[in-house]
Amino acid sequence: MQFTENDFLSMEQRYRASFFNSLGGFKSLVLIGTTNTQKQTNLAVFNSLMHLGANPPLCSILVRPASVERHTYENILATNCFTVNHVNESFYKQAHQTSARYLRHQSEFKEVGLTEEYSTLSIAPYVTESPIKFACELVQVVEIELNKTLLVIGKIKEVIMQGDYVLEDGFVDIEKAGSMTVSGLDSYHKTNRLARLSYAKTDSPLKEI
Amino acid sequence: MQFTENDFLSMEQRYRASFFNSLGGFKSLVLIGTTNTQKQTNLAVFNSLMHLGANPPLCSILVRPASVERHTYENILATNCFTVNHVNESFYKQAHQTSARYLRHQSEFKEVGLTEEYSTLSIAPYVTESPIKFACELVQVVEIELNKTLLVIGKIKEVIMQGDYVLEDGFVDIEKAGSMTVSGLDSYHKTNRLARLSYAKTDSPLKEI
Repeated sequence: MQFTENDFLSMEQRYRASFFNSLGGFKSLVLIGTTNTQKQTNLAVFNSLMHLGANPPLCSILVRPASVERHTYENILATNCFTVNHVNESFYKQAHQTSARYLRHQSEFKEVGLTEEYSTLSIAPYVTESPIKFACELVQVVEIELNKTLLVIGKIKEVIMQGDYVLEDGFVDIEKAGSMTVSGLDSYHKTNRLARLSYAKTDSPLKEI
Repeated sequence: MQFTENDFLSMEQRYRASFFNSLGGFKSLVLIGTTNTQKQTNLAVFNSLMHLGANPPLCSILVRPASVERHTYENILATNCFTVNHVNESFYKQAHQTSARYLRHQSEFKEVGLTEEYSTLSIAPYVTESPIKFACELVQVVEIELNKTLLVIGKIKEVIMQGDYVLEDGFVDIEKAGSMTVSGLDSYHKTNRLARLSYAKTDSPLKEI
């Protein structure tokens, strides 16, 4: 099957959104926790987390200021921080429910039934139920002029894990932690590892590690 | 377990890269196909594909110009196009092997044993073995000043699928196509859908769809 620009143009708006969101492949599934300066908290599901670099440790989320994501974005601008919380099977439906259009005075934590947790290093709330989570300090916002989206870049300040998921070489076994993945806008998946593969070289075969 | 900035600083370089790459959650696993103006092809595995928007359909990859990814980036600048190819179980080891440091005159297609395929709409090569693939035209490069990475943004011009994976509402069933996901730098996973969930509303419960 082949689809070209004429096909794209003839797609109904939500059909097109679902189509191109799926095409991007599996994505990280995280809840972004924020607060405003009056300690009104917010929690929002995101599938656009990107690893930007390890030294310094940087990641980004993509926000559309005109959407429900605006509470998250406004809170990040007001407080300079946010938390990123992995999602597992026990609360993925609650994670999805955070995408409903709650009002500004409603906290998604309370509305969907997840628990706020704080560390001394972050005023943004963590999700207690999350097996792997980290707190970021806002370091830059990059506007993607083409479609007015914003790449919100954070520097990781703290990482919290419920168990010891870190292997000898630094790899974090997020499958063991139960972290899930998402495809499209609404499809939630568990994972099954086939293998970890050794560093690729041109003169020797790959090994499973 | 808690990790803070002092812990990050004391990590050995490769340990830190593996740690923070894993923390970002599951990522899309794709092969980027390119060519230079002399029809010397290149194929490289990426885990940084991001969906940027559906109208127009935009996606991005993140490149580090000083790394093995530079052949890909130079080809994209020279020809303004690239292909994005999903990876399945039958060739994920070959996909990983493309990350070895092959020389400029070597094509990863030949070196790892994958097949080039062309459409009239793209001079960049597709991967025949890939179940879902699309061709992009370069539209913008955004530099992330913080760590000198580049967000290479493409507009999707053509989508090719080996089977009919598109559901009634536009959702592309990439799990049915066998598309895989990656965590960290080297861990390859299949997926198991738990559910698709209905559009979230504040006044009615979620349904599985």
